[in-house]
Amino acid sequence: MGSPVHRVSLGDTWSRQMHPDIESERHMQSFDVERLTNILDGGAQNTALRRKVESIIHSYPEFSREDNYFMTQNERYKAAMRRAFHIQLIAQRLGWLADGRELGYAYRALSGDVALNIHRVFLKALRSLGTEEQIAKWDPLCKNNQIIATYAQTELGHGTFLQGLETEATYDAATQEFVIHSPTLTATKWWPGDLGRSATHALVQAQLICSGARRGMHAFIVPIRSLQDHTPLPGITVGDIGPKMDFDQTDNGFLQLNHVRVPRENMLSRFAQVLPDGTYVKLGTAQSNYLPMVVVRVELLLGEILPLLQKACVIAMRYSVIRRQSQLRPSDQEAKVLDYQTQQQKLFPQLAISYAFHFLGVSLLEFFQHSYTAILNRDFSILPEFLVKNYLQTQMSPGSAPQRSLPPSVAYLAAPVLARCPAQRAADFLCPELYTTAWAHVAARLIKDSVHHLQTLTQSGADQHEAWNQTTVIHLQAAKAHCYYVTVKGFAEALEKLENEPAIQQVLKRLCDLHAIHGILTNSGDFLHDSFLSGAQVDMARIAYLDLLCLIRKDAILLTDAFDFTDQCLNSALGCYDGNVYERLFQWAQKSPTNTQENPAYEEYIRPLLQSWRSKL
Amino acid sequence: MGSPVHRVSLGDTWSRQMHPDIESERHMQSFDVERLTNILDGGAQNTALRRKVESIIHSYPEFSREDNYFMTQNERYKAAMRRAFHIQLIAQRLGWLADGRELGYAYRALSGDVALNIHRVFLKALRSLGTEEQIAKWDPLCKNNQIIATYAQTELGHGTFLQGLETEATYDAATQEFVIHSPTLTATKWWPGDLGRSATHALVQAQLICSGARRGMHAFIVPIRSLQDHTPLPGITVGDIGPKMDFDQTDNGFLQLNHVRVPRENMLSRFAQVLPDGTYVKLGTAQSNYLPMVVVRVELLLGEILPLLQKACVIAMRYSVIRRQSQLRPSDQEAKVLDYQTQQQKLFPQLAISYAFHFLGVSLLEFFQHSYTAILNRDFSILPEFLVKNYLQTQMSPGSAPQRSLPPSVAYLAAPVLARCPAQRAADFLCPELYTTAWAHVAARLIKDSVHHLQTLTQSGADQHEAWNQTTVIHLQAAKAHCYYVTVKGFAEALEKLENEPAIQQVLKRLCDLHAIHGILTNSGDFLHDSFLSGAQVDMARIAYLDLLCLIRKDAILLTDAFDFTDQCLNSALGCYDGNVYERLFQWAQKSPTNTQENPAYEEYIRPLLQSWRSKL
Repeated sequence: MGSPVHRVSLGDTWSRQMHPDIESERHMQSFDVERLTNILDGGAQNTALRRKVESIIHSYPEFSREDNYFMTQNERYKAAMRRAFHIQLIAQRLGWLADGRELGYAYRALSGDVALNIHRVFLKALRSLGTEEQIAKWDPLCKNNQIIATYAQTELGHGTFLQGLETEATYDAATQEFVIHSPTLTATKWWPGDLGRSATHALVQAQLICSGARRGMHAFIVPIRSLQDHTPLPGITVGDIGPKMDFDQTDNGFLQLNHVRVPRENMLSRFAQVLPDGTYVKLGTAQSNYLPMVVVRVELLLGEILPLLQKACVIAMRYSVIRRQSQLRPSDQEAKVLDYQTQQQKLFPQLAISYAFHFLGVSLLEFFQHSYTAILNRDFSILPEFLVKNYLQTQMSPGSAPQRSLPPSVAYLAAPVLARCPAQRAADFLCPELYTTAWAHVAARLIKDSVHHLQTLTQSGADQHEAWNQTTVIHLQAAKAHCYYVTVKGFAEALEKLENEPAIQQVLKRLCDLHAIHGILTNSGDFLHDSFLSGAQVDMARIAYLDLLCLIRKDAILLTDAFDFTDQCLNSALGCYDGNVYERLFQWAQKSPTNTQENPAYEEYIRPLLQSWRSKL
Repeated sequence: MGSPVHRVSLGDTWSRQMHPDIESERHMQSFDVERLTNILDGGAQNTALRRKVESIIHSYPEFSREDNYFMTQNERYKAAMRRAFHIQLIAQRLGWLADGRELGYAYRALSGDVALNIHRVFLKALRSLGTEEQIAKWDPLCKNNQIIATYAQTELGHGTFLQGLETEATYDAATQEFVIHSPTLTATKWWPGDLGRSATHALVQAQLICSGARRGMHAFIVPIRSLQDHTPLPGITVGDIGPKMDFDQTDNGFLQLNHVRVPRENMLSRFAQVLPDGTYVKLGTAQSNYLPMVVVRVELLLGEILPLLQKACVIAMRYSVIRRQSQLRPSDQEAKVLDYQTQQQKLFPQLAISYAFHFLGVSLLEFFQHSYTAILNRDFSILPEFLVKNYLQTQMSPGSAPQRSLPPSVAYLAAPVLARCPAQRAADFLCPELYTTAWAHVAARLIKDSVHHLQTLTQSGADQHEAWNQTTVIHLQAAKAHCYYVTVKGFAEALEKLENEPAIQQVLKRLCDLHAIHGILTNSGDFLHDSFLSGAQVDMARIAYLDLLCLIRKDAILLTDAFDFTDQCLNSALGCYDGNVYERLFQWAQKSPTNTQENPAYEEYIRPLLQSWRSKL
């Protein structure tokens, strides 16, 4: 077993003893779990470093998250700020670099339950959009915590449609200042993290107006709270947006600016600048200003979204071998719920997606880092990869001269088409080439279909924009098929690289097969539509799928153990490594304020209610 | 318009003015909204009574839920108990009957955010399982609030598999008492509402052991807290299960019983009794004891689940005509998000389901009340309607003599089969007979298919129970198709009864069409599998579906207005009737403790952090 000492880490009495129902799951190991963990970490050295950081973090009581579930929003915020504060102390003492792996691992160990994260987004934006001088000025201020910075883009009335942002930055040549202003209630900045009660500076995205012309969205650094006493600066109205579905630890905030003036130098100017006389000079594309949030979103996939899915899989899988319910046979003990096919159907496709997204995320990040470097060097040729539509248009003119080559992710649009799937029995579906081709076929067909619909509508006289809107449901269906194809292909390609790890390759291939076939079955109509698959072939795929559930069942706990989350990170009564679910549920409940504090309703309501009948006598 | 005065009810400054973007949605009314409300209420008299109760409830500040989002679990519990207390006072003063409509409407007005609801479940169980003497004793105690009762069935280790419950009730003939005992940690009763901090009595479901024999689950009334000072009685360990995903207002609790003795009369004995000497006398089927929770679950559909879906539709729909995002045409104002086809695709099928489930719920309740009365009279012949499997077996022997007739919900299994759908153009799909038949066909095929799989597995030598488990995914798919068929058929039948309301019939028929066709499209593989539909027919169905989205768009706000929820009941900044979303969001945020209380982290963490760089100089 990999590193049991590391994993059995809650240190309470039950942890000394494994629940036999989870121990038995780890007896027979068809592959080396520790080795898989190393692969996920990108190398054994990374695993070792991560565990070292986790040991440090978990050794300080300041970082404990055990009482989280009992806290108010204010208490959660304070605790997250306490963690941010102590991480800074430790990083300083141990020499952790601001961009080093250690801080990333510390963040993972704490499940992101730590304040001042938007600092990082601010830095990313600064480095993407700022000039060398601007970076040299603001980067150290931010890294040394001389300021606390946030990134203020979304508004009460505007989210993803950035052109619609209402906040204005009007250049005043007389004073060489920008006047930053929220002209309406809906222009209120809304949601930025760390803004509500913490930040001293905000990177404000606003519509630039200079020499009377509107120039679109640009980024401005705006001081918002006093560095002396933390009170809002003149013209600033700032606060917390209040209760949310989650993220109580973060003070997501609002910000209204009433003609707030900042010097000309505070506009980030890598891609566009305003000269002292108000002349606007453009150095990049309009899309350049969106870059920071795109960077952030790619990183979110690997750093935030995927761990959530992985942890959900760990918790659900572990609980499903402890929880017993009903009998598979009348005289048997109640069965582990994971032994039911319906429970496997709920969890295993999610487990497969966890792995599919991991490999997809790694390759996306590589692609992105390549593109990002190019864009910082003002090479914008890679940008149109997100625009499948353009490539469709090239595809739509088969008679013309060869177009410029398609990027790899959409190359299948130009590939020769297979009219029928060649599968003749269930086992044929366990072939990456077969199902990758099947997904390519369906994605290509749906994309062509959606374009055909669009053309039909416009040819029948519909307004072009209206026709576009009337086909978005179909476009969306095509886009989803394309994404599914990309995850299947990415997973299959990652498997090929594991040829030196046959045991791991085998167990992951089952997940890849499951992911591809599960998608075929849940979208079987798309495959049957043009008879690419026959009904009999769908039945074969289903047999292959159900057989895979059985095979994956044996390795299910090990495949989630490999994610190597500590119990403190999971912070789940149901998901601890030792499987002592019920003891922990019961003990944690005792610590709830609903048990430790007096009944707040007894004297005022319950007692009078119970005794009111006496007055009726 | 129906009753605008009733609907514009928050009474704050914005409510005096409608947002023009929602007002315009109500200008043209293609049907009488008030009349539809009456139909949903089951008559205009009910609408009037409901509104009267709502006016009373909303006139008392004690019932306000506006600060809910800022409260701790303890505060939510206390506020819910305050509401329960005041409802009792009002009910007494106004003569509202315990089983009358008024209390139901009050509950709806408060969105169920009121304590002591399990009282009702206790009463239901008592009346279902108790003898006339037992009902005569406990019913008034409960109704007069001389006791606070809960229903304790689920355990830490057991939920739906009731045979597995571990709590024991051992009869002691010497004292004519039952000894109620939790033999293990997992036997701890877990989840019952009102148990954590309120109840004085619990109806405990336990395994009866008498004369050495185990007799299965039976119900026992057990006093758990002192009626004098509310402390737990000897042998009782009771408390709250702590934080949950929701239902903070309810003190869901745990209960451990350590050899607690109750008199023989405390076993509810309508269907089984224990004589003084320990002789067990059975008067009903084993299923009889499950009856109370089945009753409750049918009522939950109409009383709890459906209103949640309806309210979600109201809130999402209203916000979607206020929220504007992106442009449909380059020079246009940003469009209401509800004008996007993709947003319609998200919301309208849910709206259609809200109506489908309403009509289904009404007919289910009728069916259930009929069955319930029969069962109380010890006529058990109706019970097997929930067992589709049995009817399959009858269907599987076509050569034999006519079986006893099938219940209406599965009659389609015996109906003649149509091998191909006759649709020739998109409009053909707007026909209830066509799509009801299509759903019947698919449900029948999947049921037969699942039985075929089961038989194939057992004939190839698989163990019968293992074969069952290996086909549950397929059975589930079949069961879902059957349920879809039932909702489509129920909706279509409800429409037929509205022949005197042509305008309402027309607008609801669009929802019924949408519901049926949306299901066909999302499960198109099931329809294409045996060529019941061709690919071209699926395309026709999709055209019909997309056209319906356009048609429903015009009536979307009115169709949600018809649910007639007050703003106080919705308690949503996004969903108020007047559409003043942003003003309300902004104002509500100001009232959050994260803004009204001092920053709890500034002195301790933020200030030291911001000033730490000085020490580095």
